Amino acid sequence: MIQLRPIIFVVGLLLGLLAAAMLLPAAIDVYDGNDDWLTFVGAAMATMFFGGMFLAISDSPGEANLDLRQTFLLTVASWLVLPAFAATPFVGLGLSYTDAFFEAMSGVTTTGATVLTQLDGLPRGVLLWRSILQWIGGVGIILMAIILLPFLRVGGMQLFQSESSAQSEKILSRSFDLVVFIIWIYVVLTLCCAVLYFVLGMSGFDAICHAMTTVSTAGFSTHDDSLGFFKSPGIEWTATFFMIAGALPFVLYFHLVRARLGSIRRDPQALTFLLFIGLASLAVTFWLIEAQDRAFLEALRDSMFHVVSVVTGTGYAVEDYGAWGVGALGFFLLLTFIGGCAGSTTGGIKIYRFQVAWIIGRTHLINLLSPHRVVVASYNGRPLPEDVTFSVLAFLAIYLASVGLVTLALTGIGLDFVTAISSSATAISNVGPGLGPIVGPKGTFAILPASAKWIMSFAMMLGRLELFTVIVVLRPEFWRS
Amino acid sequence: MIQLRPIIFVVGLLLGLLAAAMLLPAAIDVYDGNDDWLTFVGAAMATMFFGGMFLAISDSPGEANLDLRQTFLLTVASWLVLPAFAATPFVGLGLSYTDAFFEAMSGVTTTGATVLTQLDGLPRGVLLWRSILQWIGGVGIILMAIILLPFLRVGGMQLFQSESSAQSEKILSRSFDLVVFIIWIYVVLTLCCAVLYFVLGMSGFDAICHAMTTVSTAGFSTHDDSLGFFKSPGIEWTATFFMIAGALPFVLYFHLVRARLGSIRRDPQALTFLLFIGLASLAVTFWLIEAQDRAFLEALRDSMFHVVSVVTGTGYAVEDYGAWGVGALGFFLLLTFIGGCAGSTTGGIKIYRFQVAWIIGRTHLINLLSPHRVVVASYNGRPLPEDVTFSVLAFLAIYLASVGLVTLALTGIGLDFVTAISSSATAISNVGPGLGPIVGPKGTFAILPASAKWIMSFAMMLGRLELFTVIVVLRPEFWRS
Repeated sequence: MIQLRPIIFVVGLLLGLLAAAMLLPAAIDVYDGNDDWLTFVGAAMATMFFGGMFLAISDSPGEANLDLRQTFLLTVASWLVLPAFAATPFVGLGLSYTDAFFEAMSGVTTTGATVLTQLDGLPRGVLLWRSILQWIGGVGIILMAIILLPFLRVGGMQLFQSESSAQSEKILSRSFDLVVFIIWIYVVLTLCCAVLYFVLGMSGFDAICHAMTTVSTAGFSTHDDSLGFFKSPGIEWTATFFMIAGALPFVLYFHLVRARLGSIRRDPQALTFLLFIGLASLAVTFWLIEAQDRAFLEALRDSMFHVVSVVTGTGYAVEDYGAWGVGALGFFLLLTFIGGCAGSTTGGIKIYRFQVAWIIGRTHLINLLSPHRVVVASYNGRPLPEDVTFSVLAFLAIYLASVGLVTLALTGIGLDFVTAISSSATAISNVGPGLGPIVGPKGTFAILPASAKWIMSFAMMLGRLELFTVIVVLRPEFWRS
Repeated sequence: MIQLRPIIFVVGLLLGLLAAAMLLPAAIDVYDGNDDWLTFVGAAMATMFFGGMFLAISDSPGEANLDLRQTFLLTVASWLVLPAFAATPFVGLGLSYTDAFFEAMSGVTTTGATVLTQLDGLPRGVLLWRSILQWIGGVGIILMAIILLPFLRVGGMQLFQSESSAQSEKILSRSFDLVVFIIWIYVVLTLCCAVLYFVLGMSGFDAICHAMTTVSTAGFSTHDDSLGFFKSPGIEWTATFFMIAGALPFVLYFHLVRARLGSIRRDPQALTFLLFIGLASLAVTFWLIEAQDRAFLEALRDSMFHVVSVVTGTGYAVEDYGAWGVGALGFFLLLTFIGGCAGSTTGGIKIYRFQVAWIIGRTHLINLLSPHRVVVASYNGRPLPEDVTFSVLAFLAIYLASVGLVTLALTGIGLDFVTAISSSATAISNVGPGLGPIVGPKGTFAILPASAKWIMSFAMMLGRLELFTVIVVLRPEFWRS
């Protein structure tokens, strides 16, 4: 049997932190003279109560004693229990639990799909709560990607094992320094982004909320028109810059800060990611100039902003890019799958998997012609371990199959095809808005049936935890001793 | 450099056979007193002339002397040059070369997408020609799948290497017996099907034409209403039976005829295929009963007929199944990808790849939890060779990526999304009709822009040759010495 107590202990701790975070929106509602502060305090007390109960019935894992199975379960449990409690304030504010859970899951997975409308009229407490969820989710994902996933060897993430992690079998005995640094750089990026937003004309509140959802490439806004509300080219460029910053591997900053400026050249993902962003943006730019007769700089700004927003899985919008033409619909649907770099806040397939798939494909084609030639596939100067090629290909196949199955489930419920496939892709890739009039950037997920919202909530978690983490836990074998 | 002469020689021979086949529709047009016989005779002469030229400038490969690279090139060249010449009669009958090539490629790849309308009013010669192309294509595919592809080790087809083929490096020194048997069983199946169709009420001409496109799971009909024209439950059941017969591994018949009746149980694909067909049909049956209040037997017949038609890539239709509801649209789109068994006339991903992917996935999940346990993945009682798992996963990833890219290209041309994705899937999987009002079973590909038709023609060939065969030849490295 799996020892559940250490898992319950960690989840209890996380609930305590979540409860503490609920006091921030409570405070701003008190300041605004809004009665909703009671909801947040109530939710915080309930969350704190359950967190305390969890701690009471469990034992600390102590020094580094979570095994592989426990780590899988802890990862899934955290990403299930936290949104379940993070949803309670939304319920207090009048949402059904389905809607509340959807919103909370969309928050902590940094997806950014929303069931709330008329955001501009909502009290500041709930708007802040949505941003906080995404901000916490963002840093949680980076830490998970850097510390847990290479250990779990999920979807080829073992490529990013550090020297020490490769040797250790125990998960908690990992360098504390890196964690502290990641959190620090995350905070610094958020502050820089907030200051720039403020200088460029946002209110202080909007600046902080948007900075939190920009750096986490998450995408909740405080306005129905998303960043389009501000009608400011400067703010658009700032958002583009910080979305890219959130999509780069955070370990890279570790090296950059230590004045190893050359490390961006040695990082296998960063340059490819930037190159892809550049080319895709230019393609859309020239298309916008050609088809819609826009000026170059405006076209470049809009295309780069939306390409970056979708590729990084942020989901901000200034316009309904899906309505730029039917070709744009297909192009942005494909962009939904791309994702950023491993070890960042982004979802999706991610750059390194495309790189690995490309390398494998090339090796395979060479081998088809020369069966007896030994071709060593290497990535970033090192030979690709066999289990990595295997994991990456299996990930790609299951990723696309999942999008297909979720699409099927959503059409089965009765959604039209474009809504279904874009909702499926946007949930699994943690992007946010879908495509088309219903769930596109100008639409809302609110009117979908409850069953569709639960399916999408599951899909968001599935994508966020790189599929295999969830699938492993769902197998009956996992629970046998 | 690649020695091209043996390749040109074989293509020349094939053109000779094609020219001879053109005399059949010419004969029926003479019988009908239709002037179109001149077109067919002219096309036959031109094809014969070029075939003769090819033979004149080339050398026979003699005994078993095609190497790997030549075999790749021969496969692609055949599937490009034959439709190019097979298209000429269509041009003579007034089609543009784009339309004619599309129709011919759709024919020899057994896809069954058509740009012709008002079939009922067309002369019998051209209708027969379409059926003949599919019939020739069907047997060509079986032979390619059994003899060439295992040798080329494309997409995991090396799983089906016979003992002798695994040892030999030379491609033409393969057992002649098997080829003769395959052609014989193909002819016998076609005759049985034709006789049954005739007995059940088709005209002799319709029976022969439809038998040729049923056993090849190809799908051209002589009527706009496809098999719906006959309004005969018996004909529907007959078609269902023979589509399934065409989708089973033809090597299986080899064993069955030798009275090894148990071999169907030992065949790893056949039972899974039949089980899948059964379950998918039942699901649609109950859905039709529930949603449309149909009688059980009628619902079973219609659902089984259409499920088999799409899964095997035939593409016959009695009704527009895409209009059974938006859930049906998603379900039938997924069915488009499935395909039948390896070594049959069907396209698509095919059953064994799903089986291999399933086995790999299970092994991978076990390994995620127990990294140090050695788990041997085996298929059909034998351990799965590593290059097979690799080929299959790479195939799946590239298959789905191809569908995505072709969809993108088609939306870029201006097709709506459902039309684009279903056209892409139906072409790469060699099914035939797409989904939606434009290219669905009741629609036509005729009104698509020429560029879309060329893209789809390429996609049909790409899917038919299991992707890698084409991609290998497209690489610059292929052409270097």
